[in-house]
Parts: sequence; structure tokens; C-alpha cells
Amino acid sequence: MRPSGRSPDQLRSVSLETGVNKHAEGSCLVKFGDTHVLCTASIDTRVPPWLRGQGKGWVTAEYGMLPRATGQRTDREAAKGKQSGRTQEIQRLIGRSLRAITDLTAMGEMQVKVDCDVLQADGGTRTASITGAYVALALAFDHALKAGQIKTHPLTDSVAAISCGLYNGAAVLDLDYAEDSSAQADANFVLTGSGKVIEVQGTAEDVPFTRAELNQLLDLAEAGIARLTVVQAETLTAARTPA
Amino acid sequence: MRPSGRSPDQLRSVSLETGVNKHAEGSCLVKFGDTHVLCTASIDTRVPPWLRGQGKGWVTAEYGMLPRATGQRTDREAAKGKQSGRTQEIQRLIGRSLRAITDLTAMGEMQVKVDCDVLQADGGTRTASITGAYVALALAFDHALKAGQIKTHPLTDSVAAISCGLYNGAAVLDLDYAEDSSAQADANFVLTGSGKVIEVQGTAEDVPFTRAELNQLLDLAEAGIARLTVVQAETLTAARTPA
Amino acid sequence: MRPSGRSPDQLRSVSLETGVNKHAEGSCLVKFGDTHVLCTASIDTRVPPWLRGQGKGWVTAEYGMLPRATGQRTDREAAKGKQSGRTQEIQRLIGRSLRAITDLTAMGEMQVKVDCDVLQADGGTRTASITGAYVALALAFDHALKAGQIKTHPLTDSVAAISCGLYNGAAVLDLDYAEDSSAQADANFVLTGSGKVIEVQGTAEDVPFTRAELNQLLDLAEAGIARLTVVQAETLTAARTPA
Amino acid sequence: MRPSGRSPDQLRSVSLETGVNKHAEGSCLVKFGDTHVLCTASIDTRVPPWLRGQGKGWVTAEYGMLPRATGQRTDREAAKGKQSGRTQEIQRLIGRSLRAITDLTAMGEMQVKVDCDVLQADGGTRTASITGAYVALALAFDHALKAGQIKTHPLTDSVAAISCGLYNGAAVLDLDYAEDSSAQADANFVLTGSGKVIEVQGTAEDVPFTRAELNQLLDLAEAGIARLTVVQAETLTAARTPA
Amino acid sequence: MRPSGRSPDQLRSVSLETGVNKHAEGSCLVKFGDTHVLCTASIDTRVPPWLRGQGKGWVTAEYGMLPRATGQRTDREAAKGKQSGRTQEIQRLIGRSLRAITDLTAMGEMQVKVDCDVLQADGGTRTASITGAYVALALAFDHALKAGQIKTHPLTDSVAAISCGLYNGAAVLDLDYAEDSSAQADANFVLTGSGKVIEVQGTAEDVPFTRAELNQLLDLAEAGIARLTVVQAETLTAARTPA
Amino acid sequence: MRPSGRSPDQLRSVSLETGVNKHAEGSCLVKFGDTHVLCTASIDTRVPPWLRGQGKGWVTAEYGMLPRATGQRTDREAAKGKQSGRTQEIQRLIGRSLRAITDLTAMGEMQVKVDCDVLQADGGTRTASITGAYVALALAFDHALKAGQIKTHPLTDSVAAISCGLYNGAAVLDLDYAEDSSAQADANFVLTGSGKVIEVQGTAEDVPFTRAELNQLLDLAEAGIARLTVVQAETLTAARTPA
Repeated sequence: MRPSGRSPDQLRSVSLETGVNKHAEGSCLVKFGDTHVLCTASIDTRVPPWLRGQGKGWVTAEYGMLPRATGQRTDREAAKGKQSGRTQEIQRLIGRSLRAITDLTAMGEMQVKVDCDVLQADGGTRTASITGAYVALALAFDHALKAGQIKTHPLTDSVAAISCGLYNGAAVLDLDYAEDSSAQADANFVLTGSGKVIEVQGTAEDVPFTRAELNQLLDLAEAGIARLTVVQAETLTAARTPA
Repeated sequence: MRPSGRSPDQLRSVSLETGVNKHAEGSCLVKFGDTHVLCTASIDTRVPPWLRGQGKGWVTAEYGMLPRATGQRTDREAAKGKQSGRTQEIQRLIGRSLRAITDLTAMGEMQVKVDCDVLQADGGTRTASITGAYVALALAFDHALKAGQIKTHPLTDSVAAISCGLYNGAAVLDLDYAEDSSAQADANFVLTGSGKVIEVQGTAEDVPFTRAELNQLLDLAEAGIARLTVVQAETLTAARTPA
Repeated sequence: MRPSGRSPDQLRSVSLETGVNKHAEGSCLVKFGDTHVLCTASIDTRVPPWLRGQGKGWVTAEYGMLPRATGQRTDREAAKGKQSGRTQEIQRLIGRSLRAITDLTAMGEMQVKVDCDVLQADGGTRTASITGAYVALALAFDHALKAGQIKTHPLTDSVAAISCGLYNGAAVLDLDYAEDSSAQADANFVLTGSGKVIEVQGTAEDVPFTRAELNQLLDLAEAGIARLTVVQAETLTAARTPA
Repeated sequence: MRPSGRSPDQLRSVSLETGVNKHAEGSCLVKFGDTHVLCTASIDTRVPPWLRGQGKGWVTAEYGMLPRATGQRTDREAAKGKQSGRTQEIQRLIGRSLRAITDLTAMGEMQVKVDCDVLQADGGTRTASITGAYVALALAFDHALKAGQIKTHPLTDSVAAISCGLYNGAAVLDLDYAEDSSAQADANFVLTGSGKVIEVQGTAEDVPFTRAELNQLLDLAEAGIARLTVVQAETLTAARTPA
Repeated sequence: MRPSGRSPDQLRSVSLETGVNKHAEGSCLVKFGDTHVLCTASIDTRVPPWLRGQGKGWVTAEYGMLPRATGQRTDREAAKGKQSGRTQEIQRLIGRSLRAITDLTAMGEMQVKVDCDVLQADGGTRTASITGAYVALALAFDHALKAGQIKTHPLTDSVAAISCGLYNGAAVLDLDYAEDSSAQADANFVLTGSGKVIEVQGTAEDVPFTRAELNQLLDLAEAGIARLTVVQAETLTAARTPA
Repeated sequence: MRPSGRSPDQLRSVSLETGVNKHAEGSCLVKFGDTHVLCTASIDTRVPPWLRGQGKGWVTAEYGMLPRATGQRTDREAAKGKQSGRTQEIQRLIGRSLRAITDLTAMGEMQVKVDCDVLQADGGTRTASITGAYVALALAFDHALKAGQIKTHPLTDSVAAISCGLYNGAAVLDLDYAEDSSAQADANFVLTGSGKVIEVQGTAEDVPFTRAELNQLLDLAEAGIARLTVVQAETLTAARTPA
């Protein structure tokens, strides 16, 4: 029995709201239950120094949590003067996930910086971030296309992510904080809309798990991400439809 | 003529939404037009080291802007490894403003940390922050009172803030970004609900101004803050009324 | 009764000594009683990157306190690895005050960096800094004029600053440390030699104050700054007179 | 065909040398071909602050690369003033891997800090680090047991790690730098001696991969880690045998 | 021929002025020609953590240069966020030099922090700092003795320092900046009043030197420091004589 | 009697092993007894910004200690976010020592960065570093000569270093940790192969010493460095001989 009463293969209620920031070329407020992440995609006409002159673009991501996103207030990273290892790990993951579905050459020399800021956390902030970041990125590319900054849409697929874990001995989908903090194992899956694997990160928190259990987690993830992919597509269709 | 078409003494539309964070003891999303700030007040049962053992409490504030809160994306302070002088100036101002209406002795040995994070900026982020922070702080003290952490409500008054400036030679209330970036002078006023002065910060951006002009700005601010005080009171009344 | 025995509208003894650093293009050791600040103005032929190619100059300031400038030794900011919020607030104020009386276009592409280092502190270090910084800046422009780096003197007015406060219920001028640490309110005024306002910063330390009280403080400041303006002018005349 | 001429399921030559540091309680110089990592395990009688008084121990790891471990010299992290995101990611992974096979309660209140410093890099530094760190940790626990600091050996299993990847379309084991830098996908596996999964990290560098491919990589890893486990056991047996 | 016209064994004019800071327990403004250093000695009733409970005291030093102490303005270390290697080297040297003539046990558990801040630099700032720091330290111990914080004066000797160098092939005493910047070799000597060696630091800037040359430099230093020792003693006698 | 049983003028066993890093242009693992330092010399085709366009080269050094190089583990400087004053002092010394025997003009515009990383420490890490760094540097220049990057070998002499000290009242050569930690005085000498002085650093740890004692230490150093010079020459001859 899960604390939330969900069935093992049940996602939390998912919502993707676009157009939530008047400045950003693309934006999306993603909610996985009580986990809320504000994603903005910003177009920068300069690429990083190491990429200049190669005719290719770049997509990168930054991640942060508001201090009181969490149950106990956490210290502000800007005040501490550095980003934690966890923050850096997550923002590197988001960036890799987005680049894996982007044709960087089709972008030409421009950069998109995606910021994922957690307004409220209840587990799964990195998977919600990736899922919302894709929507913000797609809208930013729409914007660049309309503005003539790019000739073709550089996205080659969609991407979404979900966590799974072993909780009370059973494989469950989309861990919330109550489950996450006492799961025996925790895995994050980043898959494309076409079902291919971009990233798998499975970690035994306490007791090592078996290959069979890893497969159960992946089964759940494939089903969950298929549903997220539908929501992403519907969201983008709605956002692209003139009112 | 103001870019927004407002009259010189007209505030932008103001909204204060409470209960926007499920973890925080008090929270308020404040909107001054397109300037949106998420304020959370977090109770910490420990006071800062230099105050221990004195039987008094403390109220402090931190301020931040999401990278794409602004028209051009600004670098993330956590990534740069330090808070700018501007950020520190603003958070010190918010903290002083809140302490000026708080009876620290009535708090006993506890601390409230108020976080003001700008989700979207269009001028006046520090004044919106103070106005929303007061509401979040009041609700956090309500929470502490119910929980028996304090015996009496420590707030001695309310506090709100507004900016005024000389724009195209005329004194105007509540500058938005378009005005702020080309104003000759800019002043921020922090007043109590009872009309007293907590803080005045007037700055000639370009050409020094006269004492008469300073008085015009203060006249506008007094009227504007009186209206903000009403909205704050209505918001708190609604939040305190059982549904 | 003031701790120093001064009347409410009495400045501390003021002294401005020029030529105190053999390297700097302009220098001034300013003393407001026991508050001593060494101000040097350094000409840099390069402007900041964001101003290049615009044909304009820049004036900026940095502020510091020697560790034992204060009654209790304070930790050295260079050793702590960062400047405090207070330091940044003060140096931003000094820079703004100097730029408000400088015709940046008349400077052409050059920069003046003014360093204000407090050798001994007894209250009012920021106002003494501004008052001395003006003298150092004026001398540095004299130097640039003689050296043919600029064609006209870019200063459009003079600038000086003084603090006022409510101490034991009365408005008093030029707070020393004994007064500053127990004043109910504290305001810093930066005015031009011609009596216009560059900056007003009034803060209720404890109890909010009235508009009438703010006006009393401003009355005192106007009179005090008129006297500082005379001392500045006399000092510059003496410094410019060949021995 | 692999650049090194190895068959797809062939490890590089593996060597584990113990007793390479006269101060450390446990030490191991691990070589996976031209990748050389010096691992030392240091016993600290104090646990981290957040664990004090709980009667449990802690195992943590730090990772570094000498500047010229790499083909092009990389800047020294100590000189840059911060550890990269990559470094933090790796050292967190090593720590988690070691804790997954350690009975922290059996340790009592003590800490082991394992340092993995790459003397020479040729791909696979994180997997070599984990493989050598286990040996250093085991020897440090031997030392603590002899010294009477612990009553029972806290290791519940062994741990080793290996990378696999898709190179020129084929699944291959133990990527060296030449392969790593042009692989389509790259996965690191951390398994116990008994074959259970501690951590799986699979990343599509360029093109997303299929679930079938992920399974091929895991097959290779299971076989490779089985061989590493034998070498670890032989190394420890030799080290524990009196000369 | 020296740029200043001094003979090879001639010191610059030396002045030691005490009582230059109203807060510090001991203070001395030392001038070696145009090199001016403000030295303050601050008593702290706490010793560093690693020395607590051992009944011994500690003497430490910090060194800094005002940005325009030098011919070209140097960036402020507090603004850069770290102290240079040179700064750290010098402040470590000052601290060691002072501790070598202090009976730390006679101090009991207290600490003296000596700050040496260069107001104007013209070569030899470290040697002037040590020479002035001794006077400030001696006066701080006088203060502690009068206040009953210590029972006996903990200084066992005096200490002074001077630089020597090979300039245009000749050994010369007390290098100024013009000499220092083109000397072939440069040596700093820290000797006690009784003529013993506390520290010798000789460096070939360009061409290695001979042992005979090192001896010439030491001859000069012994004579120079004997004279500094007399000035120190006279200064302290005057400072200790009631007016 | 020395703890190691060595005679006062006896070096520890010295070994210099070349070719220990497959990437570096020059490398040397130097051992002074149980002190082991890995030295690599890396050629960089760019000189530092302040040297560009002058047709000259630069040699610089960095120094580090692995955390468990020492008897007690020391915190990793990369994790603390800054290099200690001691580290900076040592790496500046190594760089100066190498430049004193290098004809920077003969290098042309290129830079060599020498990294000295202490794998195991037992006293004398800075002198071992200099002695090994010379060998690595010489081999890097050999490499550049063969590659046609330079026309002539820029080394004008060899350099080696050794420590001496007063231990139990007697002058002894090449202090190990047991001696170093209880020596009354400690001196490091950096001499050329031809016997000239590059650097002398003598420090009284506790009791000041006499000029006669300084001379005794220098006598020992001259003899010790003569022997190190022979070992360096033999090592380079062997390394340069085709197998």
C-alpha cells in the first residue's frame, strides 16, 4: 500500500501549463502532484566559447530549489556561495537529456539555456524538470523559427522522465517524497517519446537489487513515460493553437 | 503620459494570494502588475548565534531572482558563487522593514526567515517583496500562535512599500520597468499601516532633484501605501476566515 | 544632551588633507572627529567592458575598513573571501554620489576609481567617505586636465554628505558612534554644493518616525552640508594654489 | 574492431597493488590498463556532525585527478577554487557504492574516508576507483578490527565496477579513452560480488539506445565484474597472508 | 650609484609613531622613507580553537595593501575574494617573526592579532611591517600588563627586519622600489635585537649569487638592524614615559 | 643521534624515476626516503596574458598533497575551495627556482607548467619537489627540442634543493618528519649544480640561531646538493640513452 493510496503503476496528477513567464521564449510550469517546477527556456545568440565557429548550437540547463520548496527550509545556494553536488548532478542530467533529442547542427550558432526552478518539492523534482523542460524548449524553438533565427525545428523526438523504486518490496511508479525517503532502491529513467533510452540511473539506497527488479522498474517507466508523452503532445498542440 | 497609460498617482493592479506553498508556515504570492514575487516565511526554532540566551527573537530576509525573471536572462547567483551587491542591499532592506514592526522580545527565542523570490520582474521588485513579505510573516506568526510557540502576536503594525519617481519631469507612483529605466530620480518608501516612515531611499539617477520634488514623491507614496495597507488587511482577513 | 557635548546642529571638527599619497592622481585624508578615511582617486585609461566604444567615462568607488578601525577588531574581508553586504551598499552609494555630479561624456573614455579606506571609525564613515572622495576626485580631474587626458573639467557641482538622527527624541547632526548605536532613527543625506538632493537614506532603527521628523533631519543636513561645502572649496583652493 | 585490438568482452589488464602508502590504514593502487588510481582509506574516529550520537558509522569518498593525468593538462581544482560537477558526481557515486556493502551499524561511531586520486587517466577512472576503493576499505576495516576499534568486519559483500558502451554499433566492455570519446552510449555498472546491482548509469551520448542494447551492456558488465571480483579476492588474500 | 643617492650601507629615513589608533591596544605607524605601514595590535581574550586548554597564548599577523599604495592601482583583495600568495607569505612571515621573541606560555590563554596595512608602498613593505609590528605588539603587552591580563611581559627580545640586495653588482642596504625592481638578488633578514637570526630569505631574481655575496648582504643587514633596534627602543621609551 | 640513525651529513636514499606518466612531456617520480613526489612538466603553447608578444617563455609550478600523504589525513584543498598559504608559498618557490636556471628568451613564446604532487610525505616535500621538477623540466625541453618547438635547450644550469636544521643542538642534513617537527631551526637551500645560491630560507622555529649556525647549515647543504646534482645528471643521462 502506497502512502498516497495510488496503485503501483499510477502517476500522480500531471499538469503542464505554458506561457507562464512573459519574458522567456518558452516556459512551462510542470506539476507532478505537489512537486511544482517552473521551467523557462531562454535563447542566447552566443554559443559557449569552446563551440564558437563550428556552426553548431548548444542546449544547457540550470536547476535550483527555492529555499522553502522543501519541508525543512534549506539554505540558499547563492548565499552559501556554491551549488551542491546534487544540484550540479541534476542540471547536467537535464542538459544531456535535452541535447539527446536536439539536432545541434540544425540550430546553427545559438544557445538555449533552460532554467528549472523548483517552487515546491515533493519528490521527483528532476524527472518533473526534464518533462517540463522539453515543453519549454520546444516552444523556444517555435519562437526562434517564427523569428527566422533557425530554418528547421531542431527537435528530433520528445523526452520525458519518471522515477520508479522499490518500496516495501514492490516496484512502484513516480515516487513522492514519503516513498522516496524510505525506498530500498530508486531509479530515474529518461526516455524518448519513441521509447528509446536516453538515461538510466538506478541506485540501491540500502540493499542491492536484482536484475529482475531492475527490469520491473523499467517496465513501469516505459508505461509511465508513454502517458507523459501524450500529455506533452496535447500541451504543445494547445499552446500552438491560436486562441 | 506614462507608458502604461496610468495616471500619475495610479498603482498597478495589486494581488496578494496566500497559501501558495504547502510547507511554509506563511506564504504569499504578490503581484504588482507583471512583477510577481513568491514570499515564504519559515519558522526556525533557533536564533542566530549572536542572539542566543537573550530571550529575544529575530526576523531576517533573503531575496533572489530567477534567471529569466528579467527581460534578458541574468546569470544565476548560485552558479556565479556570490550574491550581488544589489541583492544584498535589497534583502537587508526587507529584513529591517519587517523588524521595525515586530516586537522581537514578544517572539521569544525563535527566528523567522522570509524568502522573497522574484518569478517575473517588471520594476518594483523590492517594494512588492516587502508588501508580500509582511503578509507571509503575519501568517507565520498566526501559525506559531496556534502551535503555542508564542503567547502574543508580535506584530505592532503593518508595513508596505512603494516606489515613486520623476518620469518625464513629473512625479509618478509605482514605477514599472519601462519607467524605472528612464526615470530621472527613483525613491522607495517603506511606511507602516499607521503612516509612519520606516525607510526612505531616494536616488537621483542622473540629475539631482529638489526638496520640493522629494516632498511630491512622499505625497504619492503615502497615498499609495494607504491603498496597499487596505489590500493587505483584506487579504489577511480572508486568509484567517475559516472556509 | 549629546555624549560629546555638541549642540544638536553642530558638526564634529572637520579636516580635509590633500596630497597624502604620492602615487594617486588625487588623494584626501578626511576626518570627521575621530572618523578618519583615506580617499585616493586613481585614473585608469580603460573603461569597464560594458562601456567600451561609447565615448563616455565612468567613476566608481570601493570602500573598506582596516580590521582595527573599530572598537572591537572586525575580521578582514580579504581573509573571509568576501565583502559584506554593508560594504557593498556603501561603495555603491559613494559611486552613485560621485557620478551624479560628473559629466561622464566630458570625461571621454577613461575611468576614475576612488578608494575610501577607513583607518579609524567613530560613526559616519560613509558620509565622511563621500565628502573626502569628492576632493580626491576633483584633484584627479585636475591632474587629467594638466596631462591633457581630458579637455574640460567634468565636475558639474560639488557633493558632500552628512548623517542626522533622532537621539533621545531630538534631531541631531553628524552622529558619532556613541549616538549612532543608540539612535531611534538614522538618515544619511547626500547633497550637492548647490543644495540639491542626490541621495536620501532614512532608516528607523527601532521605532518608525514621522514625516515631520524626517523634515527636521533634512533641515539639519542642509545646514551641515552647506558648511562642508565651504571646507571642501577652501581645501581645493589651497591645494590648487602653487606654494 | 576496437582501437586496442581487444575482443568486445575483454577487460584491459587489471592490477591491484596494496600497501602503497605507509600512513593510510588501507591503500590500493589500481590499474585498468593505462588508467592508474591511488586509493587510500583513512579511519577517522569522528563521524559527521549530523550522525553523532546514533551509534552508526559512515563511509565517504573523495575523488581527484592530478592535472596531467589527462592527455591535455587540466586546471587544478584546488587552484580554481572549486570541484567540478563531474568530480562531485563521481565522488558521490563512489561513496554510495561503498556504503551499499557496509553495515554502518556494525562500524559503530567511526568514519572511513576513501580518497581516489587519478595519477594517469585513460578512460574508466570512476570504475577503477570503485574497484580499488573496495580493496582499500577492506584493508582499513582489517586494521580497525586488529586495533579493536570495531568488533566485527562491517563489509557484507564486495563491490566492483566497470563501464560498457556502444562503440561502432557493437557492445564492448571496459572502454578506454579512445573508445569512450567516440562511443554512442556509455554505461557504468556497479555490482556486488554476489551479482546484485548497486548502481546503473547509462547515458546516450548522441543517439538514444534500445532496451535490448541496455541488456547487452548489462550482460557484458556482469561477466566483467565477476572477473574483477576474483582479482579483488586474490589481492586481499595475498595482502592478508603474513609474508 | 643608488637612485636615491644613498650610500650602500645607508637606511632610508626611519620613523616610528605610536598611539596612532584610538581603539587598538598597541599601534605604530612605521615609515621607511616613502613606505608607510600602519600596524595595530589587538588583544583577543580567546585563543585559536586548536590551542584551547593548553594554557598558552598565540601571536598572529595579517597583512594588506590599500589598492593605491602602489604606483599602479592593484585590485582590492576583498573584492577579488582571496588573498594572493604573496600576501599570505608575508603575513605568515610577520607572525613567525613575532612569535620567535614571545614567550607564549607567559601570555596565558590570550591572543594578539597584529594587522599591518600598507598605506603607501616604495619597497620593503614586509621589513617595515615587522619593524613596526614589534612596537605595536610591545605596547599591547604593556596594556595587558596594566590591565592585569598577564603577569609578566612575554617579550624575550626585540625583532626588526631589513632587506638587502645586489644592485648593479654591489651589495646595498634597504632597497627602495626603484632598486628592488631591478636588483639581481634580494634578501630579507629578520634579526633579534641581540643579533640572532630569526629568518633569512634570499632569492636570486635573475642570476644565482655566491656564498660570499650572501655574506656581504648579511653584514649589511646586521648593521642596519642594529640601528633599527635603537630607534625601536627609543620609540618605546618615549611612548612609555608619561607626558 | 638522529631518529633514523643517519649521520648528521647523510642524505636519505634518493631515487629519481623518469617516464612515469604517459601523457606528460617530462615526468619524474622523486623519492627522498619515504617522501614521494610525482613531478610532471607540461608544455603549453600559450604564455600567460601579461607576457604575450614579448618573444619570451615562462616556467611555472603548482604543488599539492594528496589528502593521505600525511600521517593524519588533511582536508583536500579542492574541497575546501582554496589553496593554503603554505601551498602557495611552496609553489611560488618551485617556480622561481626553475626560472633561475632557464633562459626564458631561448624558450620563445611557450610555457612549461610543472606539477609537483606529493603522494607520500615524510618531511622535505618542497626540496624533493624542486629536485624532481628539474628532471621533469629538462625532459620536457628535450621533447620540445625534438619536436622543433625550440631551437636550443634553454637550461643554463641544473638546480636541486635540500633542507638542513638544528636538531638536538646539532646541524643535520635532509630532515625527515620526525626531525622536522622538533627541530629548533629549519633551513631550505636551493642551489645550482655549479654551487651558486638561488634561494635560502632559514627559519628559527623556536629559538633564534646564530650566524655561525647558519654557516654550518649552508656547509651541509652544499655537500648534499653536490650529491643530488650527480644523481640528477645520471638520471638524465640514462633517460636520454636509447634503450
